[in-house]
Amino acid sequence: MAATVAEYFSSTRDAHFEEFLELLRIPSVSTTPELAGEVRRCAEWVAARMTRAGIPVVEIVETKRHPVITGEWLGAPGKPTILVYGHYDVQPADPLELWESPPFEPTIVDGKILARGAADMKSNLITVIQAIEALGVVHGAPPVNLKFFFEGEEEIGSPSAPEVVASLKFRLGADGVLSCDGGMEGPDTAGLLVALKGITGVQVNLRTSNTDLHSGMYGATVPNALQAMGKLAASYHTADGRVAIAGFYDGVIELTAAEKAELAAFPTTEADLLAQAGVSVAWGEPGYTVVERMGARPTIDFNGLWGGFQGEGSKTVTPCEAHLKITSRLVPGQDPARILDLIKVHARKHAPAGSEITFTASEWGAPAYAIPRDNILQVAAERVLTEQYGSAPVIVRAGGSVPITATFKGVLGQETVTIGFGLPGSKVHAPNEWFRVADFDRARTVYAAYLSAF
Amino acid sequence: MAATVAEYFSSTRDAHFEEFLELLRIPSVSTTPELAGEVRRCAEWVAARMTRAGIPVVEIVETKRHPVITGEWLGAPGKPTILVYGHYDVQPADPLELWESPPFEPTIVDGKILARGAADMKSNLITVIQAIEALGVVHGAPPVNLKFFFEGEEEIGSPSAPEVVASLKFRLGADGVLSCDGGMEGPDTAGLLVALKGITGVQVNLRTSNTDLHSGMYGATVPNALQAMGKLAASYHTADGRVAIAGFYDGVIELTAAEKAELAAFPTTEADLLAQAGVSVAWGEPGYTVVERMGARPTIDFNGLWGGFQGEGSKTVTPCEAHLKITSRLVPGQDPARILDLIKVHARKHAPAGSEITFTASEWGAPAYAIPRDNILQVAAERVLTEQYGSAPVIVRAGGSVPITATFKGVLGQETVTIGFGLPGSKVHAPNEWFRVADFDRARTVYAAYLSAF
Repeated sequence: MAATVAEYFSSTRDAHFEEFLELLRIPSVSTTPELAGEVRRCAEWVAARMTRAGIPVVEIVETKRHPVITGEWLGAPGKPTILVYGHYDVQPADPLELWESPPFEPTIVDGKILARGAADMKSNLITVIQAIEALGVVHGAPPVNLKFFFEGEEEIGSPSAPEVVASLKFRLGADGVLSCDGGMEGPDTAGLLVALKGITGVQVNLRTSNTDLHSGMYGATVPNALQAMGKLAASYHTADGRVAIAGFYDGVIELTAAEKAELAAFPTTEADLLAQAGVSVAWGEPGYTVVERMGARPTIDFNGLWGGFQGEGSKTVTPCEAHLKITSRLVPGQDPARILDLIKVHARKHAPAGSEITFTASEWGAPAYAIPRDNILQVAAERVLTEQYGSAPVIVRAGGSVPITATFKGVLGQETVTIGFGLPGSKVHAPNEWFRVADFDRARTVYAAYLSAF
Repeated sequence: MAATVAEYFSSTRDAHFEEFLELLRIPSVSTTPELAGEVRRCAEWVAARMTRAGIPVVEIVETKRHPVITGEWLGAPGKPTILVYGHYDVQPADPLELWESPPFEPTIVDGKILARGAADMKSNLITVIQAIEALGVVHGAPPVNLKFFFEGEEEIGSPSAPEVVASLKFRLGADGVLSCDGGMEGPDTAGLLVALKGITGVQVNLRTSNTDLHSGMYGATVPNALQAMGKLAASYHTADGRVAIAGFYDGVIELTAAEKAELAAFPTTEADLLAQAGVSVAWGEPGYTVVERMGARPTIDFNGLWGGFQGEGSKTVTPCEAHLKITSRLVPGQDPARILDLIKVHARKHAPAGSEITFTASEWGAPAYAIPRDNILQVAAERVLTEQYGSAPVIVRAGGSVPITATFKGVLGQETVTIGFGLPGSKVHAPNEWFRVADFDRARTVYAAYLSAF
């Protein structure tokens, strides 16, 4: 029996790391119907690992799509209760041809583990379970009460979560949520997440005829769906990068001077960001720094655009349909349902004559989220991160969205603090996603320290 | 032995029609590398059928891609020699899911044969061979000298044809070309083709980074390839449908008042054209009628557009690349190489900052073509069509392109007259292409009459 958590981590290093690789080998892609069986296999793997960690109650809860894993370990009478949140699903791996090694065969190159889900967020998921195991082994039980909510639909916008959280409401009662769905801000710099953007999205379908046509016979005389979609797509932004949808910025809460000053201390410069992204110039709404835009300005993002002939060679066709997948990142003051409606109104208004517009609406939608700065979980996070990293965490307003934080707030009344370990530039949602090997030990240690801080 | 061509056609009706269906069952899609074997099988089928028709010299000539079939039957001393042109390849059948019956299983519905290639142009190819057979059976040999050039690359822009025509130059000598790659202008109305558009094309590739990015982290701050491509695509046309490329219309030869008057007699109205195309409004260059635009005004056509995530569900990605397939239909006064260059210059100039532009250039390119009105083959066509249809053919300036006509003119010095039997609205290059069953007999009869007119 290890006398300290550090000793336990030392003795289990290789076995725990091998478990991480095993978890990465499961292609738990939630958006791909054909991989639903793999998502379930991943849920079962995680539930079994939680049980092996000593968590006395672990349950797989069915949803309309992918299961949720709940659990609890209430072994610290008189201490707070923390609801640990994470997700075991991952983004699709395509385009596969751009991966340097197979996305579901984790490969270590230059101190980095290359695999889909390495940073987002199987690293955090496995290490928080291992940290809890360590606390149990050393102390008999973790020194704080724990509940769990691990979902398999985060990467598709958590569609089942609101209903599941509501139905489990009286089993999820806690003093707050620890979300493991976050990252660091630099190789030795922690972040303190204070805000997340909201999200909404829709697929716009444009049709000009019921059949593709011969471009020689009709190209000069009838609408071309791609030409029409080009005009429509171009109408969503001004030439200088501002969103051009009428009413889009109405009600957006501007940053205060103090908040702008705080973001100015953010360590990532515009040059860093361009280098991480591999782009030659910045783009976006004028009048704001890249850090302000990333954390506090709403966007219209195009995620997919297609129509007509995409094969090798040529096909002289006047295509009759085109499609545009749009998501919008939201900030405080914007209502997801209203923005979704504005996106649709804009499409109908700006589609060229002869275009019939329909929508394939994603079900999701979540408002932006901000955690009060004096929340006890947040205060503890700031203290523990400062101790563990040797410097205060930087204040972060994230450009990403974790829709379930709004559900935890709205349904359970709980605030969410976020701690995670992926690095900026680690290619989450893109080919060659990676996680630094050295941060595996750091993750176990920091999670154990945080769960001992109450 | 049949005493007349009409009797021969009557006695062979069922067998000849069945041959047509057999030819339609061969998926001779020239643009698809995987179907190269089927294209060759089709060439061999056609060559064998020509031999069976009595054509004494038939040869399969290899090219870099798909074979050409040549042949000759010089049995009419003192008469002109006609080079019969056609193609045995077809357009791709995709999108397959929009076909009402499988594209290579010809199906008869409401008096129409549904199949890829039914109108463009296996109907014309088989019936011209059958007409020649009939003339040989009845007269011992056709009453005009014949040479043949049937290619398998027309639907990909005839890339091998110029070289093959040049290398066979002294075997293809003739007084003019009969192209079977045409159609009718109405259910009982023939057209007299006087002009064809030229064509050039290129694929524009736009790249903003070397990897797709997380739209939450980067969507507000770096270029999105789809957004950039939308702006670029939109820049190719003005809001009212004119091509916006600098210099595009320079040198274009305007229609004379007499030519405009001739086109005004064209039987297809704007309402007919919209109904055929299944569109609700006309589109294109302002200041010209649809018939003028179709026949005599150049275009920029988008044939394919794609980038980012196209799957089911959603993927919150900032895509790093997008692609646009462009073709341009050319009129007299425009040089294909110059227009190709202008398309590229425009892409480089109008791509938003942060976009790297590359081109996947198709090899093709052909200028527009016009036949002199007093050419003897054309004069004969006008006379025979008037006799056969009971009314004068309408004058046609085609929006489509048959690049090889420019080659026949440039390399062999031969003009091309066009006779074919597909109807307007028969969905060539689109799903559910069809050919009217009743026009099968008409095609055999008219071809036989034309080849007896000298």
